[in-house]
Amino acid sequence: MRIGVLTGGGDCPGLNAVIRAVVRKGIEAHGWEVVGFRNGWRGPMEGLTKQLGLDEVEEILTRGGTILGSSRTNPYKEEGGVDKIREVLAQHKIDALVAIGGEDTLGVAKRLTDDGIPVVGVPKTIDNDLGATDYTFGFDTAVHIATEALDRLRTTAESHHRALVVEVMGRHAGWIALHSGLAGGANVILVPERQFSVEKVVEWTLKRFERQYAPIIVVAEGAMPEGGAEVLHNGEKDAFGHVRLGGVGQWLAEEIAERTGKESRAVVLGHVQRGGTPTAYDRVLATRFGLHAVDAVHDGDFGVMVALRGTDIVRVKLSEATAELKTVPEERLQEAEVFFG
Amino acid sequence: MRIGVLTGGGDCPGLNAVIRAVVRKGIEAHGWEVVGFRNGWRGPMEGLTKQLGLDEVEEILTRGGTILGSSRTNPYKEEGGVDKIREVLAQHKIDALVAIGGEDTLGVAKRLTDDGIPVVGVPKTIDNDLGATDYTFGFDTAVHIATEALDRLRTTAESHHRALVVEVMGRHAGWIALHSGLAGGANVILVPERQFSVEKVVEWTLKRFERQYAPIIVVAEGAMPEGGAEVLHNGEKDAFGHVRLGGVGQWLAEEIAERTGKESRAVVLGHVQRGGTPTAYDRVLATRFGLHAVDAVHDGDFGVMVALRGTDIVRVKLSEATAELKTVPEERLQEAEVFFG
Amino acid sequence: MRIGVLTGGGDCPGLNAVIRAVVRKGIEAHGWEVVGFRNGWRGPMEGLTKQLGLDEVEEILTRGGTILGSSRTNPYKEEGGVDKIREVLAQHKIDALVAIGGEDTLGVAKRLTDDGIPVVGVPKTIDNDLGATDYTFGFDTAVHIATEALDRLRTTAESHHRALVVEVMGRHAGWIALHSGLAGGANVILVPERQFSVEKVVEWTLKRFERQYAPIIVVAEGAMPEGGAEVLHNGEKDAFGHVRLGGVGQWLAEEIAERTGKESRAVVLGHVQRGGTPTAYDRVLATRFGLHAVDAVHDGDFGVMVALRGTDIVRVKLSEATAELKTVPEERLQEAEVFFG
Amino acid sequence: MRIGVLTGGGDCPGLNAVIRAVVRKGIEAHGWEVVGFRNGWRGPMEGLTKQLGLDEVEEILTRGGTILGSSRTNPYKEEGGVDKIREVLAQHKIDALVAIGGEDTLGVAKRLTDDGIPVVGVPKTIDNDLGATDYTFGFDTAVHIATEALDRLRTTAESHHRALVVEVMGRHAGWIALHSGLAGGANVILVPERQFSVEKVVEWTLKRFERQYAPIIVVAEGAMPEGGAEVLHNGEKDAFGHVRLGGVGQWLAEEIAERTGKESRAVVLGHVQRGGTPTAYDRVLATRFGLHAVDAVHDGDFGVMVALRGTDIVRVKLSEATAELKTVPEERLQEAEVFFG
Repeated sequence: MRIGVLTGGGDCPGLNAVIRAVVRKGIEAHGWEVVGFRNGWRGPMEGLTKQLGLDEVEEILTRGGTILGSSRTNPYKEEGGVDKIREVLAQHKIDALVAIGGEDTLGVAKRLTDDGIPVVGVPKTIDNDLGATDYTFGFDTAVHIATEALDRLRTTAESHHRALVVEVMGRHAGWIALHSGLAGGANVILVPERQFSVEKVVEWTLKRFERQYAPIIVVAEGAMPEGGAEVLHNGEKDAFGHVRLGGVGQWLAEEIAERTGKESRAVVLGHVQRGGTPTAYDRVLATRFGLHAVDAVHDGDFGVMVALRGTDIVRVKLSEATAELKTVPEERLQEAEVFFG
Repeated sequence: MRIGVLTGGGDCPGLNAVIRAVVRKGIEAHGWEVVGFRNGWRGPMEGLTKQLGLDEVEEILTRGGTILGSSRTNPYKEEGGVDKIREVLAQHKIDALVAIGGEDTLGVAKRLTDDGIPVVGVPKTIDNDLGATDYTFGFDTAVHIATEALDRLRTTAESHHRALVVEVMGRHAGWIALHSGLAGGANVILVPERQFSVEKVVEWTLKRFERQYAPIIVVAEGAMPEGGAEVLHNGEKDAFGHVRLGGVGQWLAEEIAERTGKESRAVVLGHVQRGGTPTAYDRVLATRFGLHAVDAVHDGDFGVMVALRGTDIVRVKLSEATAELKTVPEERLQEAEVFFG
Repeated sequence: MRIGVLTGGGDCPGLNAVIRAVVRKGIEAHGWEVVGFRNGWRGPMEGLTKQLGLDEVEEILTRGGTILGSSRTNPYKEEGGVDKIREVLAQHKIDALVAIGGEDTLGVAKRLTDDGIPVVGVPKTIDNDLGATDYTFGFDTAVHIATEALDRLRTTAESHHRALVVEVMGRHAGWIALHSGLAGGANVILVPERQFSVEKVVEWTLKRFERQYAPIIVVAEGAMPEGGAEVLHNGEKDAFGHVRLGGVGQWLAEEIAERTGKESRAVVLGHVQRGGTPTAYDRVLATRFGLHAVDAVHDGDFGVMVALRGTDIVRVKLSEATAELKTVPEERLQEAEVFFG
Repeated sequence: MRIGVLTGGGDCPGLNAVIRAVVRKGIEAHGWEVVGFRNGWRGPMEGLTKQLGLDEVEEILTRGGTILGSSRTNPYKEEGGVDKIREVLAQHKIDALVAIGGEDTLGVAKRLTDDGIPVVGVPKTIDNDLGATDYTFGFDTAVHIATEALDRLRTTAESHHRALVVEVMGRHAGWIALHSGLAGGANVILVPERQFSVEKVVEWTLKRFERQYAPIIVVAEGAMPEGGAEVLHNGEKDAFGHVRLGGVGQWLAEEIAERTGKESRAVVLGHVQRGGTPTAYDRVLATRFGLHAVDAVHDGDFGVMVALRGTDIVRVKLSEATAELKTVPEERLQEAEVFFG
């Protein structure tokens, strides 16, 4: 038997750990051959392959990124894309695919399975916003990095009696903000799930200054003040005529400075959150996902995705897997509020 | 209302995060007063207290250890111990206790509740061997530290063509060995749950050398060769006449050297695994445990322990909580074996 | 004898280590009393003090920031500032001051000594741009943090076939860019000491892409393209009518994207470089600086600054200490160029 | 021109950074070819080579160990060893060698140069005990790792009111103990350069307990109590009839426990100190050493070793380089003593 494996979408620590587990279990447990496809769905469309033996995956467990490369290519948006995949798989005698990726990649995986190409999915989202799994690998690493940054920034803020706004990843879900904010001892946490009142943030900030400590505000990149993007950028439009997004950290730092008369700075953590060596937690989760994806292939159970439920790895239908965005529930936000101010 | 909080048993990163959450929620959400008792159950027996206000817990989230100190004192093993606790609590007008600790501490918490002293428990075991909760704080930090050590040791082993045996914590359960072994890319993982065959370990080791890589063996301190302690120390007895325990790492390194003719070294990670700043994961878990322990007190729900189930914090009866040791199930060990050799 | 100690200027990991060493040596070796002045020169002007005994410095070695707070106050720019200092010192019976700070703080220290107030200086600059000392504490920590970020960013850049521009601190000197660039394996390093040719940067970038690797460009915040600030911001002026500075990283990423047709991103590391726990190197250097500052006070050797020369701590006149900015010499830049592209 | 490069002796973070710099500068600046010899001097004796182009060194900067492998082989101790080297070099048309190693490797390098084989040395010793250079790469990494361990261990010791003895590397020189002890806030530092009084250590330990803190003792593996090895192991002899060495940490912990009546534990850090990714400091130093070694080859300046003096890389005769062991001078020990107790 020969299986193919590919990685799609944005970078996420743990991708290589999944690849290694798939290769290792495919070869050692089942005697299969494993072929890597390069650059997401572009690989099986254009026949970009990389042979994956034990030696190729020997030293990749600890490495960030993906040795297969990635892309955002969607075969359903390219002329004859699916037929090309069918041809390439036939030509390389591939019996099944393991596709590691986020909503888009898994969406394609579902349609391909429906169209007769057997695929097993492995979920990947740094934002932890896939509903069908308790956690996804990469998330713990992102939270770890943001928390380390908060640990570093706190002492500077204290020494200089400053408010500090730290913008972390999270366009639609505030998981990274919530968890790094809790772990880093943030005094305010702002997430996309709930528009924030600048007055309330200012109040918490002042309360903190009164206690003679420096306020640290963690804000997800997708968080919005009440009134939304119109308020954030005074309705400024981007090149496509949409109200401009982003920059909430810098905007908020300026608002706080103006309204409190205190020094205030913004730090945008950016890409550093999604690169580099995965945490031990993410290595274990990614490894187990890879092992169980091979089990699913072995069982001929296609159109499914592996998922974490408690401490177990289970399988869920790809159709359910991407049905809904998992956002931070209201009670988790309220739980955190005793730390504000 | 006034509540007391104490920490018992061995060190565990995250204890301070629990204390902080209890204090913060007690004061900010309920307007309670919080009194810390020092040095485990010795505190409420002898009236060793420490006032805990917001300032006292301001900078402790990131710190290892416990600001309350710890001990292994058991009031049920001391003459009039429980009566002393009753008196001290009355004297300080304490309405309820939050007790953070492992099997022993929680066992006392259960008996005290039965004896009319209201206690809520927070589980703490670096070994992750409590059956009633998916994970305990401290475990992720221990795995993180052991994994970092494995990352460092691997390159040296490779450069010197050596076998390396790394002994990690885990007297009765192999969770730290299993998770750090998976995360650190170990070539053999040995746990207390299953006696190991030295021949099999030697075979895996040689297979690895044949592939021109250095073998890394992770062994829990409580793992045993087939034949048990008698084999390990040739039946040598300790001062109490028991067969001597411990030292399996060094013993195994010598066995491997002798049987393979290859250089082989042992590293015993020791106490470094249970100290220092907690990982982000453990800070979040410990913080949530603390918050929910206060909820239980607020609800008058005593004799329970907070626990993690999936992503939820739930309450379980203390009687169930400590009923059974959670060991690594056979299927998790088999899952890991594709990485051996 | 009673001495005062203060910290001035921007944050820098190691300040607390200096304070601890001063207190510890003052008390343990000489039996002095040590008084901390808060918030830089504002402290001795306004009598803001903090008693510093052994307990106060017990746990600060590992902490970033400064327990004394800081400011940019200059007594020579405030009405009667120096007289106020004289009065406060007399009132608190302070015999001498240890002033920890950068160019500005040390400049004040020099003038105060000339004006009869005995001061010993301890140099502090995260940028390592003080000519009289081989290294200053804080610099190694900043390089360490920037290097960790480069390690993380590289794998993402590789996986996505992107150019990555990383902006690090360094307004006037490129030491952080040079050292973190060398340590992080940058493919181009741009510093304030030498205006860069965008054409050359693009050439190196393309050479790197041709070798199938992702180009990483490290740029100091003060680096300038040929033509200077006029080119950088098209001559755009700030509120004071000066050509706008800053933002070279984002600008360069956009130029590269446009000229190469490749994806290109900028990351600005910002304040995270100057906070948090110091590296072991910086803790040792800061500690030795503190110890030798006390020696200078003990010897009655004022108007000097402690400095590192090779492995020795020496004293240099404050007048010489701040005479010249230490920039990266041309040969160090040429040395690095074999790694470009 | 073709040059060879090899690594000898024990592991040391930064070896790969030197190799990379030699290859990169040899190829990019001079158009040379670079051949790696495997496993120390065994490589040029037995013709074990590895071609080193730009791709081979692309990803090694951050990796511990050495991609060339190492050994302790000495051609002057093997029948016809030097002639074999001469033949292999002739056969591979090697014009000069860069030898990276410690005292033994550099001693061979010196004799080979005397015997007409042109060699340039790069000093490597984790212990920092080579007299001719201010620092060697690997040392900063070892100190960093030991300091991180001390940071972790302190909080546990405090929580449990224990004395903690941490044994670090350093058979003949106490540099790692001194620097990690200073950086980690040790309360006693014991080095091979000065036999220690157990009474004095106990006194400092008790002083620390009286202040309500936990004592941390850092001891180099080669440190000895007054009376020497006879005292340490009661004159116990090893298999060769020599008084047994090693184990000073465990011995001291037991002595302290017995003499103070307090709990006391030993942690032996071991190999973890010499493996894994180098610190930024070591990467820069190792890289500069490699670049300057190529300069020496280019200048035809053989029989020399590169060395750090202040911030400059200089060349010193190999004959001087290994003449004397650089131990910790008395004044550096006295400097540290204000922190004891």
